[in-house]
Amino acid sequence: MLRTFTCGELTEKNVGQKARLYGWVDSVRDHGGLTFIDLRDRYGKTQIVASADFQAAIHRGELKTEDCVQIEGQVALRPKGTENPKLVTGKVEVTKANIVGGPKSAFHSASSPLPFEIAKSRETNEELRMEYRFLDLRNPVVQKNILTRHRIYQIIRRTLDKHGFIEVETPILTKSTPEGARDYLVPSRLNQGEFYALPQSPQLFKQILMVSGLDRYFQIAKCFRDEDLRADRQPEFTQLDMEMSFIEENDLFLVVEELLKEITKEVMGHELKTPFVRMTYREAMARYGSDKPDLRFGLPIEEISEIVKNSEFKIFKDAAAKTNGIVAGICLPQGASISRKEIEGLTEAAKKEGALGLAYFKVEDGKLDSPIAKFFDAAAQSKIIKKFGASPGDLILLAADERAKALKVLGGLRHPIAQWKNLVSEREFNFCWVLDFPLFKWNEEEKRWDSEHHPFTSPNFEDWKKYKPANELGKIRSRAYDLVLNGNEIASGSIRIHKKELQQEIFETIGLDKEETDKRFGFLLKAFQFGAPPHGGIALGIDRVITILLGLDSIREVIAFPKNQKAVCPMTGAPSPINERQLKELGIKIR
Amino acid sequence: MLRTFTCGELTEKNVGQKARLYGWVDSVRDHGGLTFIDLRDRYGKTQIVASADFQAAIHRGELKTEDCVQIEGQVALRPKGTENPKLVTGKVEVTKANIVGGPKSAFHSASSPLPFEIAKSRETNEELRMEYRFLDLRNPVVQKNILTRHRIYQIIRRTLDKHGFIEVETPILTKSTPEGARDYLVPSRLNQGEFYALPQSPQLFKQILMVSGLDRYFQIAKCFRDEDLRADRQPEFTQLDMEMSFIEENDLFLVVEELLKEITKEVMGHELKTPFVRMTYREAMARYGSDKPDLRFGLPIEEISEIVKNSEFKIFKDAAAKTNGIVAGICLPQGASISRKEIEGLTEAAKKEGALGLAYFKVEDGKLDSPIAKFFDAAAQSKIIKKFGASPGDLILLAADERAKALKVLGGLRHPIAQWKNLVSEREFNFCWVLDFPLFKWNEEEKRWDSEHHPFTSPNFEDWKKYKPANELGKIRSRAYDLVLNGNEIASGSIRIHKKELQQEIFETIGLDKEETDKRFGFLLKAFQFGAPPHGGIALGIDRVITILLGLDSIREVIAFPKNQKAVCPMTGAPSPINERQLKELGIKIR
Repeated sequence: MLRTFTCGELTEKNVGQKARLYGWVDSVRDHGGLTFIDLRDRYGKTQIVASADFQAAIHRGELKTEDCVQIEGQVALRPKGTENPKLVTGKVEVTKANIVGGPKSAFHSASSPLPFEIAKSRETNEELRMEYRFLDLRNPVVQKNILTRHRIYQIIRRTLDKHGFIEVETPILTKSTPEGARDYLVPSRLNQGEFYALPQSPQLFKQILMVSGLDRYFQIAKCFRDEDLRADRQPEFTQLDMEMSFIEENDLFLVVEELLKEITKEVMGHELKTPFVRMTYREAMARYGSDKPDLRFGLPIEEISEIVKNSEFKIFKDAAAKTNGIVAGICLPQGASISRKEIEGLTEAAKKEGALGLAYFKVEDGKLDSPIAKFFDAAAQSKIIKKFGASPGDLILLAADERAKALKVLGGLRHPIAQWKNLVSEREFNFCWVLDFPLFKWNEEEKRWDSEHHPFTSPNFEDWKKYKPANELGKIRSRAYDLVLNGNEIASGSIRIHKKELQQEIFETIGLDKEETDKRFGFLLKAFQFGAPPHGGIALGIDRVITILLGLDSIREVIAFPKNQKAVCPMTGAPSPINERQLKELGIKIR
Repeated sequence: MLRTFTCGELTEKNVGQKARLYGWVDSVRDHGGLTFIDLRDRYGKTQIVASADFQAAIHRGELKTEDCVQIEGQVALRPKGTENPKLVTGKVEVTKANIVGGPKSAFHSASSPLPFEIAKSRETNEELRMEYRFLDLRNPVVQKNILTRHRIYQIIRRTLDKHGFIEVETPILTKSTPEGARDYLVPSRLNQGEFYALPQSPQLFKQILMVSGLDRYFQIAKCFRDEDLRADRQPEFTQLDMEMSFIEENDLFLVVEELLKEITKEVMGHELKTPFVRMTYREAMARYGSDKPDLRFGLPIEEISEIVKNSEFKIFKDAAAKTNGIVAGICLPQGASISRKEIEGLTEAAKKEGALGLAYFKVEDGKLDSPIAKFFDAAAQSKIIKKFGASPGDLILLAADERAKALKVLGGLRHPIAQWKNLVSEREFNFCWVLDFPLFKWNEEEKRWDSEHHPFTSPNFEDWKKYKPANELGKIRSRAYDLVLNGNEIASGSIRIHKKELQQEIFETIGLDKEETDKRFGFLLKAFQFGAPPHGGIALGIDRVITILLGLDSIREVIAFPKNQKAVCPMTGAPSPINERQLKELGIKIR
């Protein structure tokens, strides 16, 4: 055996035993005439005391940090007072130790000088980290993310297996899927001039599996989008893909909630409260100005249009008078001590969200103080205070505009305010479901209706019956839902359409003609002809969920071999040029 | 809830309860004035007795096979004598049943006429099955393969997790890997003129993970090879990919053996004997004429060159006299009753393997009977009988040729003989390890040495030290191993090289120049400079293993959405043409 123990397991129980360890030299130090080595592997660190021979070799420069060595020695108690209580192995050391066969033996892989210090790899510039990802991953802090990802994967599969979900691999070489982004394409050598697409999601395949009677499907699926990479996107990413037959929304929610409960409990010892908060899209927009509200803090939006519509303040009066206008605000408890500079900062934030400016009231005992307070009589001031449930010392921030715009401005202020006022507890995980998304959204550029989620989303049937014939498409709610964690959309799903006629009607409504839909989705429409079950599902962005749960800044931290913003892998150099023979075989040319 | 029970769970305990089921109409039949429906889902079948209303609707033609319907009724005992002991639900039926809301309601998805009968889908031509894979997968026999695959996946992960293996996803959009086959390539839009390759295996990434200190890695990995598809190959396939640090061959074998033991036990209730037989490549070739010997039956090869070298039979004498020649045979117990026609059949099989003909002896009491027996004196005949341990009534088949050729011929006869004589028990799983493969093989076409496995395979160090300087490359054994199941290679692996200098020496030996290796494998060589641990691993062909374990004919049976021999998916039509805009964006043209 090349090792009899890992570097994380020797304790007092092993004192007196011979031990053979294999790992990396974390540090070497001389102390009191002795030479100590911290030997490191995935499991921990063990203190090694070099034998006289080994010490001499070390002094000759024959051992360096990050050399990988097989060490043999005798387990002994550390001298009193030199124990390290932070380490499992902190009470013992391996004494009289040497590399098996001596330095430079076959059991010694020497290291060249390092491009960065392993323990500080996260402080290095990211391009260098990625180029030397094999060293970066030796950093226990970085390695832990990959180990945690593994742990989460096992919990996911165990939980879903328990609930009767079947793991099915769907193809990677497939047909263009309709998620709206650009496909990665693969030229076919055997069918020249034709291309496979890498899947943007297994959406159609999982629906097909429901038609097949598989009932409950999941897959930790690689998905691909050829996008211009914005911050924190990757060309390939992973989603937990699920689909269930014979269900309604709640059946799925229960499974997902249990899954996340298991993960947070087992991985971070955190007891999640279930069921998660559920709110409609309309409510989320009205209360939080966002379809992904961060509920770790309050700061709800209150509308005061009715109160101010007859006031003397023209901006408010005008906004409240418009059919689609609104005056609304957020109350910040004990925010009245805000400085002019802080007000300016918030005003800047509001302008970024599209506001012209930001009005505010400081709440005093039964009245409001503000440059614009004079426009509102005592009764109005009192009503406003009551509406917000405000107390003296609070600050009310106000926007007046077209409804959607004003809500967006106020919603956009919630997070900066929460950060400024330290309302966010970093280790809190606040999940909520947002339901009843609109089925369609108006595409102003192309002057047509698009699907808000995707065209396989089932409408709310009452709305469909009522508003479709009236052509009031914007009023039709869908059976789509998102799962939101701390203000981030982490999962998105829906109850699907499972009848061919309705599916075709939806395609027509969003302007896809029959030829187009037959070409792209013909096989799904065909499948729907043979007794399709009602079904629904969800896709959870695994990279992002793990990133948020671990409190990290970037999904690149939880991906073993990420690509940079140019979709390049700095370690391997992919993508790279290919030769003329390969191009010829594929029947393509470079332009 | 859309269903309160599945179609596989109602028993006597539920008698008297209301039940709501949702599934497919497996059959409809009238009997004794009543109409019975077998309703089917993934979990089983339940007998439904239609209410009067429903019966009338059925008689009007409002229900067809494979309609998907929600049925509500009352659980009752079947009348005495009509129970079906083969079904879990066979003692009960759901009576007074109707579709919720009646036929044609929202809870009724009607089916068009079927292209084939579901239960007989496996008898349909395969192209049609694949086009209608969603119906084929409704066949419980077909569905079971996918369910079993799921079960095997969970056992794999559970077992490897228990042994400290970490599941890591390696990239799909990556750099060309060196497995010798053609890569699937993906044009990069953001880096025009450059291409990603889809991985033929995660070989280099898993080695990099070992350099990273991850220690034990696994992945159920999608791999891709753009080959001209021979029988039973797929453009994308799945391998269980494993790698371990600080190990020797046996450490890995123990894990793999336990894994397969768990799988066969849990999935087929079969108790596997471990450790598996281990034999060297040389032994496998000498005894079985194959590096993937089927050990479910005996029929070993015995060499009789020494005995016949002085005989009067010229063919044997000449072959035995050559440095590289051999006379050898297989003894078939009680095969002497072979007919002339059967002899001719075996001779044909031998010719296919490259033999000029096939000699044979029928074993009689202490002597041999054959047209060529006269060339061998009594002593030689006796020695031959002894060599084979033959008994009267046995048949000895003989080949005389160049060693490799003769062994191949005899090895190739073992399987047809075993089938003809019914020596193979279909439900036996006979695993064996084949070790010590040659490191290099001579490439006659290119007049150079190639790696027998791949260039990352470690040589046997003693051989390397001895034969490399002498330039006797053919004699160097490697530390590569294959796992063989019933005569099929199902896994292949090796202890790897982990030092840069040796890796470069290997590259040179197989004729790769420095520029080439730096371009293709530079990142691995770079990683090896920073203290690489000794490591080794294996890759197991999941599709094939499951196919063999389930006793199926084709890997397409265990893949949810397989492609045909033209690498086309008959269901989706992938690959397909793309439009000019897409080509332009990718910076490529069709030739």
